[in-house]
Amino acid sequence: MAPERRFPILEALTDPHDVASLSPDALQRLAAEMRDAIIATVSETGGHLGASLGTVELTIALHCELQSPRDKILWDVGHQAYGHKLLTGRLPEFGTLRQHGGMSGFLRREESPHDVMGAGHASTSVSYGVGLAEAARMPGGGGNHVACVIGDGAMTGGMAYEGLNQAGALGTPMVVVLNDNGMSISENVGALARMFQKARVDSTITRVREEMERGLARLPGAEAVGTHLRDATKALWFQHGALFESLGFAYVGPIDGHDIEALRRAIRTGIERQRPVLIHAQTVKGKGYDPAESDVEHMHGATPFDPACGTARKPATPPPPTYTEVFGQALVREAEADPRVIAVTAAMLKGTGTNHMRDRFPERTYDVGIAEQHGVVFACGLAIAGFKPVCAMYSTFLQRAFDPIVHDVALQNLNVVFAIDRGGLVGDDGPTHHGVFDLAYLRAVPNMTIMAPKDEAELVHMLHTALAIDGPVAFRYPRGAGPGAEVPQTPELLPVGRGEVLERGEGVALVGYGHGVGLALQAAELVADRVGVAPTVVNARFCKPLDTELLHRLAADHELIVTVEDHAALAGFGGAVLEALQHSPARVLTLGLPDRFIDHGKRDLLLAEAGLDPSTVADAVARAFHREQAAHGTR
Amino acid sequence: MAPERRFPILEALTDPHDVASLSPDALQRLAAEMRDAIIATVSETGGHLGASLGTVELTIALHCELQSPRDKILWDVGHQAYGHKLLTGRLPEFGTLRQHGGMSGFLRREESPHDVMGAGHASTSVSYGVGLAEAARMPGGGGNHVACVIGDGAMTGGMAYEGLNQAGALGTPMVVVLNDNGMSISENVGALARMFQKARVDSTITRVREEMERGLARLPGAEAVGTHLRDATKALWFQHGALFESLGFAYVGPIDGHDIEALRRAIRTGIERQRPVLIHAQTVKGKGYDPAESDVEHMHGATPFDPACGTARKPATPPPPTYTEVFGQALVREAEADPRVIAVTAAMLKGTGTNHMRDRFPERTYDVGIAEQHGVVFACGLAIAGFKPVCAMYSTFLQRAFDPIVHDVALQNLNVVFAIDRGGLVGDDGPTHHGVFDLAYLRAVPNMTIMAPKDEAELVHMLHTALAIDGPVAFRYPRGAGPGAEVPQTPELLPVGRGEVLERGEGVALVGYGHGVGLALQAAELVADRVGVAPTVVNARFCKPLDTELLHRLAADHELIVTVEDHAALAGFGGAVLEALQHSPARVLTLGLPDRFIDHGKRDLLLAEAGLDPSTVADAVARAFHREQAAHGTR
Repeated sequence: MAPERRFPILEALTDPHDVASLSPDALQRLAAEMRDAIIATVSETGGHLGASLGTVELTIALHCELQSPRDKILWDVGHQAYGHKLLTGRLPEFGTLRQHGGMSGFLRREESPHDVMGAGHASTSVSYGVGLAEAARMPGGGGNHVACVIGDGAMTGGMAYEGLNQAGALGTPMVVVLNDNGMSISENVGALARMFQKARVDSTITRVREEMERGLARLPGAEAVGTHLRDATKALWFQHGALFESLGFAYVGPIDGHDIEALRRAIRTGIERQRPVLIHAQTVKGKGYDPAESDVEHMHGATPFDPACGTARKPATPPPPTYTEVFGQALVREAEADPRVIAVTAAMLKGTGTNHMRDRFPERTYDVGIAEQHGVVFACGLAIAGFKPVCAMYSTFLQRAFDPIVHDVALQNLNVVFAIDRGGLVGDDGPTHHGVFDLAYLRAVPNMTIMAPKDEAELVHMLHTALAIDGPVAFRYPRGAGPGAEVPQTPELLPVGRGEVLERGEGVALVGYGHGVGLALQAAELVADRVGVAPTVVNARFCKPLDTELLHRLAADHELIVTVEDHAALAGFGGAVLEALQHSPARVLTLGLPDRFIDHGKRDLLLAEAGLDPSTVADAVARAFHREQAAHGTR
Repeated sequence: MAPERRFPILEALTDPHDVASLSPDALQRLAAEMRDAIIATVSETGGHLGASLGTVELTIALHCELQSPRDKILWDVGHQAYGHKLLTGRLPEFGTLRQHGGMSGFLRREESPHDVMGAGHASTSVSYGVGLAEAARMPGGGGNHVACVIGDGAMTGGMAYEGLNQAGALGTPMVVVLNDNGMSISENVGALARMFQKARVDSTITRVREEMERGLARLPGAEAVGTHLRDATKALWFQHGALFESLGFAYVGPIDGHDIEALRRAIRTGIERQRPVLIHAQTVKGKGYDPAESDVEHMHGATPFDPACGTARKPATPPPPTYTEVFGQALVREAEADPRVIAVTAAMLKGTGTNHMRDRFPERTYDVGIAEQHGVVFACGLAIAGFKPVCAMYSTFLQRAFDPIVHDVALQNLNVVFAIDRGGLVGDDGPTHHGVFDLAYLRAVPNMTIMAPKDEAELVHMLHTALAIDGPVAFRYPRGAGPGAEVPQTPELLPVGRGEVLERGEGVALVGYGHGVGLALQAAELVADRVGVAPTVVNARFCKPLDTELLHRLAADHELIVTVEDHAALAGFGGAVLEALQHSPARVLTLGLPDRFIDHGKRDLLLAEAGLDPSTVADAVARAFHREQAAHGTR
C-alpha cells in the first residue's frame, strides 16, 4: 500500500533494536514516518488512530532500550501498538490492517515473535508481565527484561491492581509504563484518573520539588528533625505515585511521553533497578494529527476518513440506526417513565448507546470504568435499594462479570437487567471481541431470564419486558444495524417464555434465536425449493424460560426441528432445545458457530464462512431432512 | 441449643441498636457472651471461628453507631459475621449454623433484613456499598448510611479496588472498615499486606506523629516553609493510608479493633464526614480464644472441636485421603519429574493441596491472593515463557477467571492446566460455594480439553495427561474423599478423548462423568433389578473432546443412553452428549442437578434431594427405558 521511499528510515530497519543506533534527529524523522504510515493506513481501513499516534515516541524509546523479542515488550489491549507493528517489520503488510486475512487491529502471537501476548480486553498486561518476569529469573528462565505499557483507562481494571500487588510483594524486576493520556476511550473515570489529572495540570511540580529541597537545606535546625522530615518530603514528591509506592513499585515521573530521550533515560534506569518500577508517561492521544487531537472520542476507533481533514468518509446513503442506537434511545424513554431506571456501563458510554442516558439523566448514569465485575455488583447494590439498574455491556466484556452474575445477581434473584450489546460476531475487531459464549455461560444459571430480539422493534419491547420482570434478565443483540424494522414509540410487554410462529409450514420447523431469526426467514425460501415444502419459521425470543410447549407442538407435527443462532453451537440455544426435547420423538438439528475462534473480517463474510448464511443453512437443512425421510419415511 | 440465662445481655436485646444505650462495662460483658456463644456453637457445628471471634467488638461498635436495617452494614464474604447474626436476633437458632435447613454459615438476604447482601466470595462488599450509598443520596433514595467491613485478604481482590476507585471519584458518602487481621486464610500475600504488616509492627507510629508535630512547631522559620511542609508531614502520617488517599478516601487509623470506644468514635466521625472514609482497624484473628489465636490457619474453617482445648473431634477411623490431598501430592511428584511445572493458587494453598508444592518447591509455588483473574493471566505469562503452570482453584472461584480463560488462555492456546477442586456440590458452605457451572462455562470455549476422573487413581493420571497435552486443559474433582481407589505411584497417560467401558450390558448404557461414574455403577445394579437386564456402564473421562465414536457405538446397540453428572443439567455433560448424538437414532436421558440454587447441608443429603442418589437415578432410568420400549418395542 505504501509507495516506496515514502518511509526511508522505517524501510531500512532490519531489526527493531536498530533504532538504538539512530541519532536523535533520525529518531524524530522516524517518529514522523510512523505517524504518516499510521494516518495513511487508518484513513483507509479504520482503526484505533488516536491511541497509536500517542505512543509513537514511547514505542521508539522502548525498542531502543530493550532487545525485542528476547526482552518482552507488552502492550495492554494492543490498540496503541500500530507503531510497534511498524518497527517490527510489518510495514509492507500494514495496509491490510483489520482486513480479513490481513493484519489484526490488536497484537497476536501468530502475527509476530515481537507480539508477546495477544489481547483485545484491557488490564491484562501487568499480570502477563509478572509471569514473564518471574519466569525470566527462575532457574532455566531467560534472564531477559520485561516492560508493560498500560493506559490510564486500563488502570481502572482491578486485574491490573492485582498484578501490581503481586509484583510489588515479590519484588519482580519489571518496568510498567503508565501511558497516561487522560482519556480511556471517551473520558476517564475514577479517583485515580482525577489524581493523574492533577499531576497533568500541575506543571510546576518539578519546580516545587526543587524549591523544597533548597528550602529544607537552608532551615536552621533542619538536621535535628532527622530522617522523618526527609521521608515526609519524599512522600510529597511521590504524592502522585503514592498508590504505586504503596503497592511496592518505585514511581518515576511524570515524564513527557513525547520526549524520546527522557523516556529512554527513565526506561534504562527502570530496568537497571532490577525491581518493580512504574514510569508515569504523559502522552497526548492523537498526537501530531490535529483532527485526532481535537476530537479524541471520535478518533479512538476511527472509521475510514479523509487524511487531509479527518472527516469521516460517509456512505452514499445514511446507514440505518444500529441496535445500539435503538437501545440507547429506548432506555431514555424507559427512564423518563420510571425514575428507578439507572444505566450502568463500563467505559462504553457511546459504544452501548448509554451516552443518550448520560445526556438526558446524568445523575442516573454510571460509567464505572473498565471494571465490569464491580459494575455488576454496584448494580446489585442499586437493585437492593429498590432501583432498576440496566447494565449495558458488550457480550465479550461481560465475561469478566460472570462470577458476580452467578454469585450476586442470580443467587439473590435481584432485579438487574443485562443489555448485552455485540452479541455474535462483531467483525473487524476479531476473536477477542466476538460475543459468542453468552448463552453458554448464562443459561445454566438459575433464576435468569434470557432472550434475544429478532429486530429493532423487538429490542424495544424486550427492554420494556425486562424491566417488568422480577429477577435478573439478560437480552443480547448484534453489532450494527438490524433488518430495519420500524421502531415503535410505545413499548409492549412480551409474554415471558413464549416464542412466536412467523410462518406456518410443514416438514421442517426452523427455530431462530436473535439474529438467527432473520437468517431462518431468508433460508426458508431456499429450503422450500430444496425439499419441496415450505417450512415453519419460529422466532424463539426466549432461551430461558424456553417455550417448551411450542417446541413440543412443533415436534409433534414436523419431521425435523432446526435451531439457528449466531452463538457457539456448543452449549447454546440449540443445546437448550435438545435438552428440552430429549423425551420427545422429534429430530433436532442445531446450527450455530463452529468450535474454533473466528478471525476478524466483515461480519457477513465471517458468518458465511462459519456456515451461517441462508444458502448454507438451507443446504444443511435439506440434507438432514432427506436423511430423516430416508430413515423413517414420511410420518 | 444455648441453655437459658447463659447469655443475659444478648437475650435481652430486642433490636441490635439497643446496644448503643449499654454502658461500656455492659458492652464488654456482651462481647464475652458473644464469644461464648460463637465458641459453643462452632465447636459443635464447625465453621469460620477465628474470623468471627476477631470482629466481636467491631460488630458491637457498628450496631451502636448505625441503625440497622435502615442503615446498611455490609460484611464482605460474611464468614466473620457470626456476631452480627447474634446481635440481630438469631441467638435462638444459632445452634443450627451450617446445618441443613438451618442457618447459613454466610449472610443471606432471606435469613434476616439485617443481612443486606449475601456472599461467600470475597471482595464484593465495597461495590455493593457504593451502589447502596449512591442509591441513598438519589431523589427517592433513603438518605441512610452505609458501612462495609472488608478483610485485608479480601482487599487483594481487584473488585475491591474498582469499587474504591469509583467511590473516591464520586465522593460517595460511605465508611469502609478495613478489618486487618494480618491473615487472609492462611498467610496474607501481596504488597499491600506487607504495608499493613509494617503498620502493625510499628507500634510507635502514633508517638512519632506527635513528636513530629511538636518538633515542627518548635522549628525556627517553620512558617516560612509554608503549606508544603505541612502537607508533606501529613503525607508521612498517612503513609500507611497512601493507597486509599490516592483513591479519594480519607484514611483513619490504624485503630485497635478490640477497643469498642475507639471504634465507635472512628465510625461516628466517618459517617459525619459524608464522604468516602476508610477506617483501618487492626484485629486479632481468633481473639479471646487461645486455641484459635495460636493456630489461626487450622481454626479459620474449623471442624467440630472440644471447646476446652480446641482439639478437633477426630472420627473413630481416620478418613480416607481427599481428592485434594491426592492431587497435592501428585503435583509434587510431577514437579519433581519436570522443572517446568509450577503451581498457581489464589489464597487457597491448603484448600487446594498446593501447600505440598509450597513445602517442597517454594520457588515454584505462587499464591496470588484472592485474585483468580490475575492468577490465570499470570499463568499465561509463565506458559509463554515455556513453563507449565497448574492453576489449582475451586470451581466456584474459577468463575472469576472466566474471561482470562477465554481471552488469554484458550484464544492463544497456551499450556495452562486448570485443576478444578470442589467440582459439584460442596456441602456445608452452600450455594455460594457449589461448583456446578464449570462445564457450562468451559465447554463452549475452543481449544479446551476438559475431563473429570472417576476416582483418586484417575485423578493422578489426569494431571499427568494434562501436563502432556499441548493447549489448555481443565479437570474437575469433588470435595472430600473419593471411592478409595489405590493411588498409583506411577502416573499414566490417558488416551485423549477416549472413555472406558466399565461394565458391558444391554438395553441401557449409563455414561457417568466424574462423580457420576460411581453413581452410575451403584445405580446399575438397581437398574438391572428394575428393567430385567444389566446395563452397560461407561466412564466418559472426557467432556471435550467427547468420545463420539464410543457414543455412536453405544447408541447403535442400546435402547437408551443415560448421562449422569453432578453438574447443572443445563449446558453440562449431558448436553454435550445430546449435541453429539443429534444425528443418531439414539434416545438420551440426561441426569444432573436441577435448575435451582442448592442449599447448604451434607453433600450426600443434598445430592439425594437433587435426585442424584443411586435409587432415584435407577428409578428415572427405568421409567425412561419402559417409555422407550412402549414407544418402539424392543429393537
